[in-house]
Amino acid sequence: MAIRLGPNRYGKAQTRLVTVRRDGGRHDLTDLTVSVALAGDLAATHLTGDNGAVLPTDTQKNTVYAFARAHGVAGPEEFGLRLARHFVASQPAITRAEVTIEAHGWERLGPHSFRRDGRETRLAAVTVDGAAGVTVECGLTGLVLLNTTASEFTGFVRDAYTTLPETTDRILATAVDARWRHAAAEADWDDSYAAVRDALVAAFVDTHSRSLQQTLYAMGERALRTRPELAEIRLSLPNRHHLLVDLAPFGLDNPNEVFVATDRPYGLIEATVVREG
Amino acid sequence: MAIRLGPNRYGKAQTRLVTVRRDGGRHDLTDLTVSVALAGDLAATHLTGDNGAVLPTDTQKNTVYAFARAHGVAGPEEFGLRLARHFVASQPAITRAEVTIEAHGWERLGPHSFRRDGRETRLAAVTVDGAAGVTVECGLTGLVLLNTTASEFTGFVRDAYTTLPETTDRILATAVDARWRHAAAEADWDDSYAAVRDALVAAFVDTHSRSLQQTLYAMGERALRTRPELAEIRLSLPNRHHLLVDLAPFGLDNPNEVFVATDRPYGLIEATVVREG
Amino acid sequence: MAIRLGPNRYGKAQTRLVTVRRDGGRHDLTDLTVSVALAGDLAATHLTGDNGAVLPTDTQKNTVYAFARAHGVAGPEEFGLRLARHFVASQPAITRAEVTIEAHGWERLGPHSFRRDGRETRLAAVTVDGAAGVTVECGLTGLVLLNTTASEFTGFVRDAYTTLPETTDRILATAVDARWRHAAAEADWDDSYAAVRDALVAAFVDTHSRSLQQTLYAMGERALRTRPELAEIRLSLPNRHHLLVDLAPFGLDNPNEVFVATDRPYGLIEATVVREG
Amino acid sequence: MAIRLGPNRYGKAQTRLVTVRRDGGRHDLTDLTVSVALAGDLAATHLTGDNGAVLPTDTQKNTVYAFARAHGVAGPEEFGLRLARHFVASQPAITRAEVTIEAHGWERLGPHSFRRDGRETRLAAVTVDGAAGVTVECGLTGLVLLNTTASEFTGFVRDAYTTLPETTDRILATAVDARWRHAAAEADWDDSYAAVRDALVAAFVDTHSRSLQQTLYAMGERALRTRPELAEIRLSLPNRHHLLVDLAPFGLDNPNEVFVATDRPYGLIEATVVREG
Repeated sequence: MAIRLGPNRYGKAQTRLVTVRRDGGRHDLTDLTVSVALAGDLAATHLTGDNGAVLPTDTQKNTVYAFARAHGVAGPEEFGLRLARHFVASQPAITRAEVTIEAHGWERLGPHSFRRDGRETRLAAVTVDGAAGVTVECGLTGLVLLNTTASEFTGFVRDAYTTLPETTDRILATAVDARWRHAAAEADWDDSYAAVRDALVAAFVDTHSRSLQQTLYAMGERALRTRPELAEIRLSLPNRHHLLVDLAPFGLDNPNEVFVATDRPYGLIEATVVREG
Repeated sequence: MAIRLGPNRYGKAQTRLVTVRRDGGRHDLTDLTVSVALAGDLAATHLTGDNGAVLPTDTQKNTVYAFARAHGVAGPEEFGLRLARHFVASQPAITRAEVTIEAHGWERLGPHSFRRDGRETRLAAVTVDGAAGVTVECGLTGLVLLNTTASEFTGFVRDAYTTLPETTDRILATAVDARWRHAAAEADWDDSYAAVRDALVAAFVDTHSRSLQQTLYAMGERALRTRPELAEIRLSLPNRHHLLVDLAPFGLDNPNEVFVATDRPYGLIEATVVREG
Repeated sequence: MAIRLGPNRYGKAQTRLVTVRRDGGRHDLTDLTVSVALAGDLAATHLTGDNGAVLPTDTQKNTVYAFARAHGVAGPEEFGLRLARHFVASQPAITRAEVTIEAHGWERLGPHSFRRDGRETRLAAVTVDGAAGVTVECGLTGLVLLNTTASEFTGFVRDAYTTLPETTDRILATAVDARWRHAAAEADWDDSYAAVRDALVAAFVDTHSRSLQQTLYAMGERALRTRPELAEIRLSLPNRHHLLVDLAPFGLDNPNEVFVATDRPYGLIEATVVREG
Repeated sequence: MAIRLGPNRYGKAQTRLVTVRRDGGRHDLTDLTVSVALAGDLAATHLTGDNGAVLPTDTQKNTVYAFARAHGVAGPEEFGLRLARHFVASQPAITRAEVTIEAHGWERLGPHSFRRDGRETRLAAVTVDGAAGVTVECGLTGLVLLNTTASEFTGFVRDAYTTLPETTDRILATAVDARWRHAAAEADWDDSYAAVRDALVAAFVDTHSRSLQQTLYAMGERALRTRPELAEIRLSLPNRHHLLVDLAPFGLDNPNEVFVATDRPYGLIEATVVREG
């Protein structure tokens, strides 16, 4: 039984790029972490160490910086598209380029002063494939939301290992990780991103939740209804359990006021919400 | 030469406490990480394993939760003072209690909905010492600030190992870690905290910096001038270097527009600014 | 255009399980982190919050602990198989269970004493699918290897953004992340694991590398040749760059002796090596 | 009330240095993270931004690399001493230099091949002070130890908040963080380090523990008895709680066999053990 090379890719991960655009005294700041992965006819370097088709990852890094200066960084999606198209167009051996970008947010404090906002990280993942074409996936991670009430969990399966009581009033907390695929490679990216994020937040806030699954679906559905340019959205929601503390040993009641926030284990709810057609 | 027990303390670290105060439909959320360290006549447990003077760390944790219910959590300083005083007052062997609290910020999204704000973590460290009395130290960590200009670094020492060029225009970025000691054990803590944080931010923004040391001192001085209740402030400022990328190999100039944000190594500037008397 | 639920799963992540088997005075220790993900007919909870098909993640956690006592933990693969089969067999709505286990290594210091070894983390991922059957994937992460020589990088593509010089002598360092799929659901798991790990290490050590891709392929091929029970292996190898320091400004040469170990960016080489048929 | 500059220092933190010593075909590897902090007459840079006394942190980094080539790295203590003495001797304004070094361990796999061992990190902290002289503190962090039995916790204080039951058989687990001060600035550092580490491990293994404090003291005492060159040792031992799982709801007993390993909160036991005189 022969052994052979299967799917493979390579690239430079986590190139840190900060750009300043100076428009008179008022500066604009962009802060990105850029990762590149290239695939194509790369068998030779794996099998014999012949690097004749390998564009070094160091060169990929240089390209990120040079393109930032030569073309500017209008946004992570456009910058990712430009980079991915460049690698596929300029390298005969490369048939597929994936550029993944994290955009770190800063809020303005003055004409040249900024504070890292720390709310969430915006994501863009662009794939340019000679055969399959262009896909753009946007997303976010680290958006931490909490409802102190309006969350129930009842009517679930009980088996020999079930000890959890039903509850009609619990804390529901999660750190949203979301990726949404655009139907086309063009959009008003900034506007779309802000609207999707706000739709996710609004659905979390508005939903009276009987399960985190229900909240997840409501969030995904809201995003798709709000923005027709989205083809689908994947959500990964950890259930960050907040356990009610038993204060009875100390002669105290605890009417949903004092909780332990736990790290591990946590529930993890994952689903894709899809637009038909 | 005899061997003996030197300074020692023990306690429960990182008890996670989330409280919800329900005032009709509008809820308030508090999210704290509480650490306790007790010291006193604890030789026996070290030398013989006699635990007759040891209040278990598990009990300390229970006390955090019980006090949150019995007394509420008005703020990290008041909650820390209450806990520290309790341990010293109630435990004959304990002569000193240190309670350190991290307060995690959430912004309101609705009557019972919140988003973790992620900007900075507020700190309170309370020490109740039978002999030395009460001290309250407030602080913050994780406040990330950046100026895109108005920062120079010139006129420094040059020796055989110096390669750094002088610059009159660089990015200055740091993650502020600050601790300030209050002269008294009473204050309008929330108001004081917000004013000190804002003073630190404003001084960072306003200072035309010839060194990060100069910016640090300006920040500390501004905080002490703004708030007379502060006796001193310690600042620890990493210099998060943003290196200008050399784009000349690609036929491009780089007029302070494209930078590499580096992780390590970093400069670290530490100083205390003190009010006399 | 209608909106609908796509692929979904849920479960308890990162349940921490430590077991002690006491065979007289000599104890054995197992230290696992267990994650469960279940899929099946779960539309109701997403669409209406009807949890009639939902086995709570809390129950999944309880099952992990109960099974550890009732059946013991012979190894991560067998324990994962038992758990995954249980969820699919006992839950009418569940058609697929994935159990992923990290096994943390400890070395023996005495009959009841251990030191965490910290070398690498062993992984087992078991999937039981009503339709597709059983698959077992083993793996490891955090195995950090370094050759101080016997690594070249020459003959690569040069374009307008290339500045990297060729080298015939560089440090090659990586943190191996590997996953290998077994052809069958039965094996001598411990023996197989140790042999695959040793094959990966040996191939890294033995290969005179002209690219990290070549080293990767050699590692995968060695593993497959060594262990016929493996159907394929996926390797993800970061290239942890060690940059030669330019000491010329200080009147010193640097014949491959003094290096900066960098964190970011890093190269990332990913490939699957497959056994035909 | 005037405001003035208090204690201050600055330097380059976390310079990553890897050296290869080539002795024919057999190579030796050293992997260090070096941090420098300088103090002295530095008021001007804080108060006016006059950097005439400031040796840039970039120069400190260069010095680390140049010294590694010019003088070699015999070990973290000697390398730290050389660096610290250099900064104080060569810089008129600098009266105190602290050099802190983490040494990362690698085990040999072949003449030029290594595996990161991941067991613990060795530490050296050297201070050269014009007035106070030279001090060398050695240490380690990340040494994780566990006894499955021979640990009790009984006879402790009980108050209104105590719920913990006494136990005569529990898991005792900790991650040792230790720093020991040498009485002199000369020693056989490698030999001393290995002996202290082994003494700490042996005392943990040998001690039948009635409290983690007792184990801590036994560890410190063993280190001081073993190595007369030590003046004192500070130990910081988190109590990594392993909680017995209640399996009664599932009809199972649990004779100290199945445990939850918890992350937070944890006990934290800190003490110094001192040699008199």
